[in-house]
Amino acid sequence: MPADLTVTAVHLTPILVADPPLLNTQGVHQPYTPRLIVEVETADGTRGVGETYGDTKYLELARPLADLLVGRQVSDVNGLFALADEVAVHASRVSGRVDVGGLRGVQTADKLRLSVVSAFEVACLDALGRTLGLPVHALLGGKVRDAVEYSAYLFYKWADHPEGVASEKDDWGAAVDPAGVVEQARAFTERYGFTSFKLKGGVFPPDEETAAVRALADAFPGHPLRLDPNGAWSVETSLKVAAELGDVLEYLEDPALGTPAMAEVAARTGVPLATNMCVTTFAEIPEAFGTGAVQVVLCDHHYWGGLHNTRRLAAVCQTFGVGVSMHSNTHLGISLAAMTHVAATVPNLHHACDSHYPWQSEDVLTERLTFDGGKVAVSDAPGLGVELDRDRLAFLHRRWLDDDGTLRDRDDAAAMRVADPHWATPPVPRW
Amino acid sequence: MPADLTVTAVHLTPILVADPPLLNTQGVHQPYTPRLIVEVETADGTRGVGETYGDTKYLELARPLADLLVGRQVSDVNGLFALADEVAVHASRVSGRVDVGGLRGVQTADKLRLSVVSAFEVACLDALGRTLGLPVHALLGGKVRDAVEYSAYLFYKWADHPEGVASEKDDWGAAVDPAGVVEQARAFTERYGFTSFKLKGGVFPPDEETAAVRALADAFPGHPLRLDPNGAWSVETSLKVAAELGDVLEYLEDPALGTPAMAEVAARTGVPLATNMCVTTFAEIPEAFGTGAVQVVLCDHHYWGGLHNTRRLAAVCQTFGVGVSMHSNTHLGISLAAMTHVAATVPNLHHACDSHYPWQSEDVLTERLTFDGGKVAVSDAPGLGVELDRDRLAFLHRRWLDDDGTLRDRDDAAAMRVADPHWATPPVPRW
Repeated sequence: MPADLTVTAVHLTPILVADPPLLNTQGVHQPYTPRLIVEVETADGTRGVGETYGDTKYLELARPLADLLVGRQVSDVNGLFALADEVAVHASRVSGRVDVGGLRGVQTADKLRLSVVSAFEVACLDALGRTLGLPVHALLGGKVRDAVEYSAYLFYKWADHPEGVASEKDDWGAAVDPAGVVEQARAFTERYGFTSFKLKGGVFPPDEETAAVRALADAFPGHPLRLDPNGAWSVETSLKVAAELGDVLEYLEDPALGTPAMAEVAARTGVPLATNMCVTTFAEIPEAFGTGAVQVVLCDHHYWGGLHNTRRLAAVCQTFGVGVSMHSNTHLGISLAAMTHVAATVPNLHHACDSHYPWQSEDVLTERLTFDGGKVAVSDAPGLGVELDRDRLAFLHRRWLDDDGTLRDRDDAAAMRVADPHWATPPVPRW
Repeated sequence: MPADLTVTAVHLTPILVADPPLLNTQGVHQPYTPRLIVEVETADGTRGVGETYGDTKYLELARPLADLLVGRQVSDVNGLFALADEVAVHASRVSGRVDVGGLRGVQTADKLRLSVVSAFEVACLDALGRTLGLPVHALLGGKVRDAVEYSAYLFYKWADHPEGVASEKDDWGAAVDPAGVVEQARAFTERYGFTSFKLKGGVFPPDEETAAVRALADAFPGHPLRLDPNGAWSVETSLKVAAELGDVLEYLEDPALGTPAMAEVAARTGVPLATNMCVTTFAEIPEAFGTGAVQVVLCDHHYWGGLHNTRRLAAVCQTFGVGVSMHSNTHLGISLAAMTHVAATVPNLHHACDSHYPWQSEDVLTERLTFDGGKVAVSDAPGLGVELDRDRLAFLHRRWLDDDGTLRDRDDAAAMRVADPHWATPPVPRW
C-alpha cells in the first residue's frame, strides 16, 4: 500500500545564527542573522526540512502558507506556486529597492513569496524522499555527478564585530587589504580544499580590490577568480577593472547595476559577466539574454522559488548558451544540501557554486556538511540526507525569542552605523 | 527498506498497428505503421512501459541503449542522455531531410537518439511510479490540473486504403472536401466531445483547405480552429490564407518551412503561428524566438527526449512569453498517457493538445484511454496508469515479424505511389 503523503502539520522555527563581520557595499553583516527553518510533517510522522530567509516579512508569509499546505500532498510541489499566490503580501512589506538580503535586485511581492515557497518545496521534497527511500536528486531525475564543486567565498571583514555588540568570536581574523585577502584564501584552501575564489567587493575603492584580486592571482596562479562588487561601479569603472583583471578573471559578477549597464559593459569587454542581481526572475531573462548583458546566471534556489525552478532556469540558460551556477547568501546546512542535490542534476553546470556555509559556525544539523577538495559529495541517503539537531534548533530559536527585535530583520547598514554613526547606504554607482 | 530500482532487463517489442489512409503533404499513411514498445524491468519484477517510433533506424538505436540501461537505476532518467550519447548512429541512417515521421523538421542523429531516449525515460518513470505507488505526474512535481484537453485532429482521408492492399477497415469514411471534413468533425465531437479542431492540410490547393476551415467555422461557430499544411506553402500563400481565415483561426501551424520563412509570415500577420517543424530542438529556439517566428511551440515528448525535457521546453517557452502545447504523430495509449501526465504538470499550457489516438483502432492496452468532453482524465494510479495486453502485443508483434520489410519503415510517399505510381514528394513550397 502506498505511503500516506498528506501534510498533517507544518512547523516554523525562526532562529538567529552567528554571522561574522563580513563587509559589503551596503555595510556589514550583523552579529546574528535570521533564518527560518520549515518542517513539513506527513501522516506517518515523517518530517522534511527546508530553510529560507528569516526576516519578519518572510515569517508573515510563511504562516498562512503553512496553513494552506496542511491536507495537501508533499509530492504536489508544482502546486505550491498557486498556493502561494493566495497569500497576500502587504504593500508596506515590499521595499521596491535593492534587497539587502543577498543584494538580489529590487524586492517585489513575488520574490518574497518565491523565497518562502522555496523552503516549503525543499521540505516537501525532503519528506517525500524520506518516505520513498530516495535522495532528493533522484526526485529531480537523478544526479549527473557525484560531487558538486564550490568556490571559496572571500570577504573583506573585520576581526570582530564592533565593541560592545554581543557576538560570537570567529577565528578568521581581519581581511581589509590584499595580504589579508590572500591569507583568508589560504585558510579556505587549507580547511576546505577550494580551488577557485570569489571576492565580495564593492567595499573599498576599485583600485584596492583590483590589487587584492591580483594578489590572489599571484598566490594561486591559474586558479579561477571572481570579483563581485554588487553593482557598485559605473560602466566606465567596470570596464577599467575588466581591462586590468581580464587575464585572471573567470568572470566579473554584477560590476554595474541593472541590465542596460551590464549590457554596455558586456559589449565592451571580453570578460564574462555573471549576475544574481539583474537576472533574479524569469521575467528578467528575455531582456538580459537579448542584450547579451550576462554570460553566467547565478541561481539561488531560495529566491528563484525552489529546486524545480532552479532546473527550469538551468534549462533556459542552456538553451541560450548562457552559463549557470549558484549564488549564495548566508545559509545553513539544509540549504547547502538542497543546493548540492539540485546542482548535481544540472548537466550544464560549468562553474563552481558559491556558498557562505564556511562562514556559518552555527548550524541546526547533527552533523555539518563537509567540503572535500572544495566539493560536497552528493548524498544518496533518503531525502536531503541531513538530520536536525533539535537541541541546537531550540537554542537558536531561543536566541530569536530573546531578541528585542533589532536583529530579526537583516540590516547591514544599521550594523555599519554601530561602528560609524554617519554611515549611509552609498549611492549607486558608488565608484 | 527502499525498493531495489535496478534495471535487470529491457524488453523491446516492435509492432505494426493499423493506420487509416490519412493524407498529408508527403503522401498517405500506410495501412500499418511501426511502433516500438519498450519495457523496463526492475529487480523486483516491476515493469514500466514506453513507446516510440518503430522504424528500423530507431530499433537499431534502442537495442544498444537497452543493453547499457541494465544495471542502472530507473530513477536515473537524467543520465539517459549521456548514455544515449554512447550509442552510435550510422550516418547512412540519418536522412538530413524533413523527417516524414511526423514531418518534424530535418532528421539528425541527435533527434533519432532523443526519440529513443523518450521511450526509455517514460518506461523508467512508469516503473518508478509503480514501485513507489506514485503516478508519473507526481514524479514530475505533481499535476496542476485534473484533466488535459485535446483537440480533434481532422485529416483529409480516403474511405479505404488502395485496392489490393492488406488493411483494416475503418469506419470514418472519406473526407476530401469541406463537407467531408465537417462530417468528420461532427463524428469527432459525438464520439469524444472535442471542442477545438485541427485540420491537417498541405494536401489540396490552399483555396480548398481554406474553404474546409471556413466550413468548420460555420458548423462550429466560436470553436478554436487550426490548419497545418506542414510547411507546404510559400510566404505569400501563408499570408493569403492567414488573411482569409484570421477571424476564425486559433493559430496557423507551420504554414511555411523553416524559421526565416515563418518569421516573415509572423511579421506580416496577426494570426499566431505554431510549429512542430522549425522548433524541434533546444538549439533551434534562440533564432526562432529572437525573430518572433513562432507564437506556440508544439512539443512532442518523443522527439524532444521525454517528459523532463518537455517540462524544460515549457519553462523556456513561458520565460519568453511563447505558448506551448503538444504535437502528435501516430501513437498508442502508452504515449497518450505519458502526454497527459506531463501536460498535467505544465502550468503554461493554454491550448488543447493534439492527438492521433482516435485514429488508432488498435492498441496494446487492456483498456483504452477515453476522451470525455475532449479531455483525458489525469490518472492518479501508480506509474502511467495503463496495463499492457500481452495477447494484443504478441499479435501486433507477430504482424511485424510476418511483414516482408515493406511496412517496417514508414513511407507515406511509397504508400501514395501504390495509388498513384507517378507520385513524387512535392517540392517545398508546394503552393
